[in-house]
Amino acid sequence: MGPLELYEKLTEQGDQVRALKTAKANKEEIDVAVQLLLKLKLEYKQVTGQEYKAGCPPPENLVAPDNGPAAAAGDNDDDDDDTVDPWNVSTTNAKGVDYDKLIVRFGSSKVDQELLNRMEKVAGQKLHRFLRRGIFFSHRDMNQILDSYEKQKSFYLYTGRGPSSEAMHVGHLIPFIFTKWLQDVFDIPLVIQLTDDEKYLWKDLTLEECNRFSMENAKDIIACGFDVNKTFIFSDLDYMGASREFYRNVVKVQKHVTFNQVKGIFGFSDSDCIGKISFPAIQAAPSFSNSFPQIFGNRKDIACLIPCAIDQDPYFRMTRDVAPRIGYPKPALLHSTFFPALQGAQTKMSASDANSSIFLTDTPKQIKNKINKHAFSGGKDTVEEHRKHGGNAEVDVSFMYLTFFLEDDDELEKIKQDYTSGALLTGELKKILIETLQPMIAQHQERRKQVTDETVKLFMTPRPLNFKI
Amino acid sequence: MGPLELYEKLTEQGDQVRALKTAKANKEEIDVAVQLLLKLKLEYKQVTGQEYKAGCPPPENLVAPDNGPAAAAGDNDDDDDDTVDPWNVSTTNAKGVDYDKLIVRFGSSKVDQELLNRMEKVAGQKLHRFLRRGIFFSHRDMNQILDSYEKQKSFYLYTGRGPSSEAMHVGHLIPFIFTKWLQDVFDIPLVIQLTDDEKYLWKDLTLEECNRFSMENAKDIIACGFDVNKTFIFSDLDYMGASREFYRNVVKVQKHVTFNQVKGIFGFSDSDCIGKISFPAIQAAPSFSNSFPQIFGNRKDIACLIPCAIDQDPYFRMTRDVAPRIGYPKPALLHSTFFPALQGAQTKMSASDANSSIFLTDTPKQIKNKINKHAFSGGKDTVEEHRKHGGNAEVDVSFMYLTFFLEDDDELEKIKQDYTSGALLTGELKKILIETLQPMIAQHQERRKQVTDETVKLFMTPRPLNFKI
Repeated sequence: MGPLELYEKLTEQGDQVRALKTAKANKEEIDVAVQLLLKLKLEYKQVTGQEYKAGCPPPENLVAPDNGPAAAAGDNDDDDDDTVDPWNVSTTNAKGVDYDKLIVRFGSSKVDQELLNRMEKVAGQKLHRFLRRGIFFSHRDMNQILDSYEKQKSFYLYTGRGPSSEAMHVGHLIPFIFTKWLQDVFDIPLVIQLTDDEKYLWKDLTLEECNRFSMENAKDIIACGFDVNKTFIFSDLDYMGASREFYRNVVKVQKHVTFNQVKGIFGFSDSDCIGKISFPAIQAAPSFSNSFPQIFGNRKDIACLIPCAIDQDPYFRMTRDVAPRIGYPKPALLHSTFFPALQGAQTKMSASDANSSIFLTDTPKQIKNKINKHAFSGGKDTVEEHRKHGGNAEVDVSFMYLTFFLEDDDELEKIKQDYTSGALLTGELKKILIETLQPMIAQHQERRKQVTDETVKLFMTPRPLNFKI
Repeated sequence: MGPLELYEKLTEQGDQVRALKTAKANKEEIDVAVQLLLKLKLEYKQVTGQEYKAGCPPPENLVAPDNGPAAAAGDNDDDDDDTVDPWNVSTTNAKGVDYDKLIVRFGSSKVDQELLNRMEKVAGQKLHRFLRRGIFFSHRDMNQILDSYEKQKSFYLYTGRGPSSEAMHVGHLIPFIFTKWLQDVFDIPLVIQLTDDEKYLWKDLTLEECNRFSMENAKDIIACGFDVNKTFIFSDLDYMGASREFYRNVVKVQKHVTFNQVKGIFGFSDSDCIGKISFPAIQAAPSFSNSFPQIFGNRKDIACLIPCAIDQDPYFRMTRDVAPRIGYPKPALLHSTFFPALQGAQTKMSASDANSSIFLTDTPKQIKNKINKHAFSGGKDTVEEHRKHGGNAEVDVSFMYLTFFLEDDDELEKIKQDYTSGALLTGELKKILIETLQPMIAQHQERRKQVTDETVKLFMTPRPLNFKI
């Protein structure tokens, strides 16, 4: 067996070991499976000269597919309980997912101080708080994007959203707030994909519902302040049937990815519908500039940067594996951490649980009540104990939210110190968050009101954009 | 286990037995698998009260998926060596595939004398020779189509072609000649799908090549004489990116078919690309009238009749299984036999072997040479023996071709008798075929010359058609 075959075999065997453990199979059976796993690992080392590491396929010139979190999770023999894939994020740790481990598992790179310094230099301005505070913490090929940009070669941005309901919550804004900043700083075009077809395939919803959610969500996205002359928003259900070039790229990707690969990357099974199985190609296609001939003509060489939450990375690992094989550049990525649920950082916010999130439609009173009632506190049980021992900002959801939304670094640092020392009580911390979110959301609602159906239509019409590449 | 589960389990086990036999596994292993197969068959009989029969799933109200030829072939314990699926047709019998067995295996219905009489009555004219001679030999729900038509409820026709090369041969004309006749007789709209995306996924061809073959093949199809006011021809690569409604129906089908199902129906494996796995939905979608809003508006209730060679039936068994679950009527079908290769009826003509076929571009001389040199003969080795014992028309390819293309029934019957008696020699029989095909193909070439790029464009432009439904 070649390195890639061995690697895939190992990934598979890892899955099986995990499946047996999950099913609480008898010890003997598990032992046999583990023995085979160890044997394969040994063989892998003999063939490749390096340790097998889940998430790190053999070198690229062997056409190694990036492997996925499902596979990776299966092979991690340490007691890492984080689950991160496009449909599930959970951890047993109140501080949230271990992002350093995730970088190793996914094979991405840390956004380190060196990269931050370089970005600041190229941007020519202070970095966005999401970068300063490690919220966009991981990347792929960001240095190549900056190299090209410094040589006057521009790039475009691609981000998206799965419109599973009319209601969006504050966590959903993270990639859009950040993308808007990137668009302003680099003065570049942006495409935003609304995967209403995905939501139809995964949820118990009709096509019409999913498409309507696209239109409603588009309003919230537009309210983030995107430049209509530089931004194209599209619903899959509409754009797939409106662009020959887009479909051609979808088919190209579909020809170069096997069921085995999507099984490894996304954990699909034989009883999944064929729509789910082929969908990843539709999320991949916007990474290639010639999917948008109205914007880029027939140019296929324009670099793409994708800002997204890291749970979307599996799609783009697949995309980056396919790209060179169909003659396209690999997209670069900037990954964000998850926005925690009010109840704690063990999971991300859910649009389906009203009390887990602050919605963009919440009134000031609802915001106040939700935070006071549901935001998990790192404070002590009594005022006396809190004053004496101080609170734990690292697990306190109100403090976490402030790291996302409070602009002033010094103020944030002071809050942390005061909370940790016990000078600041939980109620006071919550009050700061309430007073930060109430005007922010009210302003969002005001801007959203200005977004008419005509504006949405304009953003969603395939058309040339205003830019120089 | 319920009946359907048991049925699927049986189908799977049948596959496994076949795989073991193919792999020449050791006897013990095969015996174990066969024992399990027999046990399951017994259980199936106990649960359903009937024998398990490959190709005949339990009654429809149990939401039984039509099963496919791959599965069916695997479970037939008799010595039936016919292989029939969309990519392979072969048999060891010189007379060709056993079509009666195929009807049983596929679960379709025979086009019997009663149906023929009825069709003749409804058509109000003599039936096409393809019907008179059993070339369209099998159907699904043809009686329902006629019932509705008699009540002034019309229907539309859907057929297609996979454009795997520029060159089409005479066998490729069969569905189009017949569809043209149906269109004339019933005065109804017709959609013709060119699956250039499928050819890209299956063959070592570029998107551009496949799309160009679509345009070239469209010319040959148009040369069959279709009414431009009643006919819409489309390439998948173009129409998928030009119709929101078409894509919506594709996604609907994709949501309601699992990998398990396409594995059973088409024999796909885990190492097939995700494009192949999801493609069947694209061949299914034209069966639903609202895939063509420019023709049918938003009506989704217009019945569809699909004339095609029977190797395409797996696609439409799948389609018929899905249709009621997404609120659409099941398409009806008329199945044809295969057009044999010059070398004999063991396989169908191939576009990739120049000597296996008479191409639509062949000169009179090429036609003459190919038939004289390659057409498998049912005649005896010497003239003396032939005069004495007579020839075998049933395996004689020249005679088979005449059943497809010689219009006069009496003449055909006389040829058969004379050949069988020995009065007609092989050379004489071949001469009749040559003189039948030469003018037919010359006329086709003449008509094709008249088909300009503008005509092709007109046929392939989504537009209203002229009809009453």
